[in-house]
Parts: sequence; structure tokens; C-alpha cells
Amino acid sequence: MSTLAVASEEDRPLDAMVRAIAQAARTAGHRMGLADGAARDAALRGAAAAIRRGANEILAANAKDMAFAAEKGLNAAMQDRLLLTPDRVESMAQGLEQVAALPDPVGRILAAWERPNGLKIARVSVPLGVIGIIYESRPNVTSDAGGLCLKSGNAAILRGGSESLHSSTAIVECLQAGLREAGLPAEAVQSIPTRDRAAVGAMLRMADLIDIIVPRGGKSLIERVMRESRIPVIAHLEGNCHVYIHEKADPDAARRITLNAKMRRTGVCGAAESLLIDRKIAAQQLPAIVDDLSAAGCEIRGDQTAQSIDRRIVPATDADWDTEYLDAIISLKVVDGLPAAIEHVNRHGSHHTDTIVTDDGAAAERFLAEVDSAIVLHNASTQFADGSEFGMGAEIGISTGKLHARGPVGAEQLTSFKYVVRGTGQTRP
Amino acid sequence: MSTLAVASEEDRPLDAMVRAIAQAARTAGHRMGLADGAARDAALRGAAAAIRRGANEILAANAKDMAFAAEKGLNAAMQDRLLLTPDRVESMAQGLEQVAALPDPVGRILAAWERPNGLKIARVSVPLGVIGIIYESRPNVTSDAGGLCLKSGNAAILRGGSESLHSSTAIVECLQAGLREAGLPAEAVQSIPTRDRAAVGAMLRMADLIDIIVPRGGKSLIERVMRESRIPVIAHLEGNCHVYIHEKADPDAARRITLNAKMRRTGVCGAAESLLIDRKIAAQQLPAIVDDLSAAGCEIRGDQTAQSIDRRIVPATDADWDTEYLDAIISLKVVDGLPAAIEHVNRHGSHHTDTIVTDDGAAAERFLAEVDSAIVLHNASTQFADGSEFGMGAEIGISTGKLHARGPVGAEQLTSFKYVVRGTGQTRP
Repeated sequence: MSTLAVASEEDRPLDAMVRAIAQAARTAGHRMGLADGAARDAALRGAAAAIRRGANEILAANAKDMAFAAEKGLNAAMQDRLLLTPDRVESMAQGLEQVAALPDPVGRILAAWERPNGLKIARVSVPLGVIGIIYESRPNVTSDAGGLCLKSGNAAILRGGSESLHSSTAIVECLQAGLREAGLPAEAVQSIPTRDRAAVGAMLRMADLIDIIVPRGGKSLIERVMRESRIPVIAHLEGNCHVYIHEKADPDAARRITLNAKMRRTGVCGAAESLLIDRKIAAQQLPAIVDDLSAAGCEIRGDQTAQSIDRRIVPATDADWDTEYLDAIISLKVVDGLPAAIEHVNRHGSHHTDTIVTDDGAAAERFLAEVDSAIVLHNASTQFADGSEFGMGAEIGISTGKLHARGPVGAEQLTSFKYVVRGTGQTRP
Repeated sequence: MSTLAVASEEDRPLDAMVRAIAQAARTAGHRMGLADGAARDAALRGAAAAIRRGANEILAANAKDMAFAAEKGLNAAMQDRLLLTPDRVESMAQGLEQVAALPDPVGRILAAWERPNGLKIARVSVPLGVIGIIYESRPNVTSDAGGLCLKSGNAAILRGGSESLHSSTAIVECLQAGLREAGLPAEAVQSIPTRDRAAVGAMLRMADLIDIIVPRGGKSLIERVMRESRIPVIAHLEGNCHVYIHEKADPDAARRITLNAKMRRTGVCGAAESLLIDRKIAAQQLPAIVDDLSAAGCEIRGDQTAQSIDRRIVPATDADWDTEYLDAIISLKVVDGLPAAIEHVNRHGSHHTDTIVTDDGAAAERFLAEVDSAIVLHNASTQFADGSEFGMGAEIGISTGKLHARGPVGAEQLTSFKYVVRGTGQTRP
């Protein structure tokens, strides 16, 4: 990319500020990558302590943000995401301590071998460098994302939603206090101190200083970032997740998994949005499933066959098969066997998380192999799509892309690697 | 990205052709990903046989390309890269057989564990999907790149330089013959059958059908692809590789490694472009090194200190420190110790391949840790930067990016992974 062309696109004063932050991040990132894992963990524990010590200041900053949000007329769901309580502040501190307790993702020997000429080659994990994280007005993401970047030896540039400016600034100060106490550069975690949305554009153009962008939030935010970014992006676009009830499904497992996958929490990306059921068992198993979902307050939008089986099912349109509701709604389709189910999931799903319920091992293996999603499950709820449920610790999101990181993105996924080659004077013939 | 916005940018008739190819590739890719490794290897061996059987047709097609190139006034180096000979055709066939003999990169269990709730989680390698490869007029790349994609269960869309159209088409026919004989879809390897350069732009916009773009060639090609692509790119920009002779270097090793790193082949990305030498030993070791390089026909551009030591050294300008010559020229700087050398490499290098010559183990380890390059070596030539020298088999290039693939990109690096989760009815609390 031509540096000149990029510079001419930039909004000068704002750009100078973002560039200064990114330059400080790059210098700090270099030091972070060479620091001991023990020092990085000490910084995380110090940051947790600083958050507990500074809880009152954080809550006061959040009160300012909440007043601004109320004035701006933010809706109730968004205000709830912005709100911090003493419990939520304590959760942030605990989250940082949990990340500190994870194994060090940096300096792992991923592979090592010796060549016939005596060269010893090792593939060793290293930090990515500078990570830009762009998210909505959720103060806890400041702590979670900053902590994961710190754990993995990266420098973070955090850009939260404009309504969370005061809260995020207060939390970043705690992360920086932890870094300082551990003898690490405070600039390893920085936030962008302005509500000006053009700062996001400036970040997305700084390909010479920022190594990767991680957007976390709603579809429009992520689409904007993917469209504008000159920097590689790790993103998940959406989770249009499926439960497929195969003809050999255990009826009780089918009921429990469907209800849990849809209704445990409807606003998470691993929530099921679509139910596929085999024609052979639809009439027999659907009524009980509809009982469960209706009792939990879920609207069911089905095809004609489904509607003819149970009149509580309302008509689905074609758009329903492609919709991530993030709400108490599910689309329902009666399918003609396993291949039709696989085809539907691959066509309409978002390659996020899909499950098959069956007692037929061969059918399950075929589903697991042929469904092209980051996470495929057999006889388990889609709501397990979560880094901590996978035992990977905290996550920054679930990637639906196939490059670099797929599925839960935790500290390990925020690393790259290098090849270290040790010789004794070898030259190449 | 908005599909509408993209469509309006597209050149309609050409776009329709490229889109049809990409759609066929996606369907074929799905089948390839599910095919047995044995079938994919049979297709590679069949393709090798088809290349040997069809050698005369390939050479005749190449003769047409050579005539076109001569008419167009292509320079001698480019004509040499375009030229096929019976030996070069045989090399392509052997290359495919070597790739067939590599272990299957698909379906590897990269990690597997069980959760306390009984869920069994496995991380399993899967193909990336559809890979677009954009390269210059080098017919052997058609065979190498197509073969690596086939091995890794992907579908390939190959776009070679316009001068190689006939040669590439003939080679793709052989690859397709191998696929057909093995019962696999011929559309898994396709080329773009036009000289129109707008076809590249059309490919770069098809983010809905092509999963990844791999450009292979000169700097201007790769920069264009990185600038225009809406699809993730694996690329190496250049190889500004360093040899650093530390004060504790064995003088003989320093001579041999410097000469080999610079002059074994000057046109490869792993060729050294810059020599750093410690001030403490410069006067003592430089003359012999300059003897070797001068005898081999290498021009040496040095800083003032270097010039004062040996008058055969001509002056370097600031631009020399950042230049990849790909020629018999080397820049030379006298540095004040290890930290200055590391700083210089990280500032001026291209994060490709750098080596330290020293008998001081601690100095070596510091260099290996702190130089931020895909490949770092101790007491070995930078010319080992090559997938086959690493024992990874054929490669499509060396990535200087940190995402997904860093260093040599072989069949294994052309895969992604999925999480396969096997349960017994688990729901999430």
C-alpha cells in the first residue's frame, strides 16, 4: 500500500493523535513481547487489584457515562450493557485474575525438528504485535480485551463506544497501574481518548503500526470494520446456529438440547436460530418440542409441513432461514434426511456453530465432517460455543473466518509464531 | 461488505465468467474437502503422468507463448522464466509426485481434550476452501500451486501472467486429467482463460466465493493485490535479509555464511541484502569478506567506517538500508554491538529472514528472540529460507505477515481447522 495515498486520506489532527498512540503501542508491544510471562501475569493481578481499589472511581466515571447515555436517549438494552455495578466491577477483576492463571501463550515450542544437515528448527509462538480492538459501549470489554492482549504479550489499542468513554478511561488507568507495578510499559494498553467516531477510521488505516483489528459488537459495526479496514481483521459476523434433530434422535435429548440451545440465553452468538427436524419423526416429536419452546415464550416460525403438524407454529418466510434473531424466535423446517439437513445448514448458516441430535453414530460423523462451521457438535447444545466452556479461558469473540483463528479467540489465538533455526555454520549447497 | 456495492463495481461480462469459475470452484472445493487423502494423492500422481504424456503438447503451447512474448518485447529474464524445456516439464511432474508423497494435511487432530462435563473436543484440520493464486508468467507455478491446493483439499483458481496463457492452460488440463482419473471434480483446479488483466480485479472482489488470495511474484504485483483485495491475502512483500557478524563470530564461518547468503543465488527472497559487522572486529574480518564478495562479482555499498577499512567498498546512501536488490549488490554497515544490530534489523529489515554469526550462545539467543522476523537463524545462511530446506515440502511462497501463515507456506499452511464436539446430551447450565 502506498503510504502517500493513505496519508492524504487522513484527517490530520485526529490522525496525529491516533498515530502517536499507535507508535507508543508499537514500542510498548516490542517490550511486552520480550517480557517474562511472570511479569505479564503480575501486571494482570496488579490490574485486578487496582480495579478493586479504584471501584468507586470507576463507578463514578460510569455514572457520568450513564447520564450522557440517558441524555442521548440510548435504549434500555444498551444502557444495561453500559451500566457498571459493584458486582460487575468485581467480575472484571476476577476475569483478569483468571486470565493471569492461564498458561503463557508466548514462547511455546509449537514444533521442533532437526534436518539431515544438522540445522535445528523450532516453531515458537510470539505475540502478534499491536492489536486494535473496536467495540460498543460495554466497559467490561475494556478489561477483558485489554487483559487478553496483555496476557499474550501484545499491545492493545482499545476503542470502545463513545458512550463508555469515562468508564473505559478509568478501567484503562487500572490496567496501566498493573503494568507499571510489574515494571512493564503502561502504553501496552491504551484507549482512544475522544468520542469522535472518525478515530475508528484513523485506526483502520494505520496498517504500518497496527497488526490486527478485532471488532466486537453488532453486525453493522463489524461490517463497517471489514469494509474499511486496511489491516487484517478477525471478526465474527453472526451466529445463525442450527439444531438438527435426526430421525434416530433420542426424543428426550432432542427436547432438552433444543430448549437449551434456543432459550438459555437468546442474545448470545451461540444461541440456536433455526431448528431442522427429520420428516420421519416430525409428527411424533414436534408437539413436545413446541410445548417446551412455547412455555418458555418462544415464537416458532415454520414451513407448511410444520404448521400442519402443530397450529402454534406461525408461517416462516424465506428470509427467516437466514436470520439471526438474537431473540425468543426460532425458525423451523422439516427436512428429508441428513443430506438435506447438511445442505440447508451450509447454505443458510453462518459457519458458526451447529449441532446434530442423533443416536446414529455414522449420521453424526457425517454431519460433523460435512457441515462447514467453526464448531460442530453431536448431542450437545450450541450454547457451548464459548471459549471458557471449551476450557480456553476468556475469549475476545468467536471467529467465523477460516484464516488464523477460527472459533473462540482467546489469548493463544492472539499469537503468531516464528521459525528459530540453530546451525553450526551451515551454508546451502 | 454490501453485495450491491460490489456488483456495481464489476465489469459485467468478465465478471460473469470469473463468477462462474468461482462458483464451480466452490462446489468442487466442497467435494475435495470430503475426499480421501488417498484419492487426492492419486490425482496428483495422475496429473504427473498426464504432464509426462502431454509433454509435447505443453511444449507446443509454450512455444506459442514464447512467440507472443518475443513479439511483445519481454526482457530476457522474463522470457527465461516463461520458457519450458523437456527438463522443466519433467521437474513439474516430479514436483507433483513429491507433493503426493507428503503426509495428508487434512483431517489431522491438532488437539483433543475432554471437559469436566464429558464433552469431547477435537480441533481438526480442514481445507480453507477456494484459493485464488495470482502470479507472473511462470508456467511451473501453475503446476506447483495447483498441486499444493489439491493436496490440501482446496479448490484453486489460477491466474498466471498473460504471456503464459497457453502453457498454463495445457498444464491445468493435465491437473484436471489427474483429478478426473481419481474420481474427483476437474473444477478443483481451474485457470482464468483470458489475457484481460481486469480478470484479476474481478477475482479480488469475489469475497463471497473465494476464501483467500495468494499473490506470488514481484513487489508491484503483490502491492496491487494487497491494495485491491476484498479477500484476505497471504503474501510476502519482500526479503530484505541481514547477515550480522557479531564480535565473537568465527571468522571462517562469517566468510562462508556471508558469501553463501549473498551470492549462492541473488534473485531469491532469502538472499542477504545487507551485512552488519561489529565495530570491534570490522578491521580484522572485513578485508577477507570483501575479497570473497568481490571475487564473486558483488558490489559492496558501505558506510564511512567500512569505506575507511577497505577502499573497494563504495558509499551507501540511506536508501540502501531498505533496499532488496535481488542482485549482486550488498549494503554494509559497521554497528556498535548486538543491540544496535537488532535495532537496525527490526527497523530496516522486512521481517523475512535474518541470521547472526557468533560463537557466543547468549548473544545468539538474544538475537533469535528479539529480531522480529519470520525466520531467524544462528550460524547458518539466510538462503535456507525455503519450505523444502525446512522439510515442509513444496511451498507457494514465504509469508512475512503474522496472521495465519508466517514463513514458508506449504500444503499444511493452506488449511484451517474446525472444532468437533462430541456429547451425550449435554446442555449448558
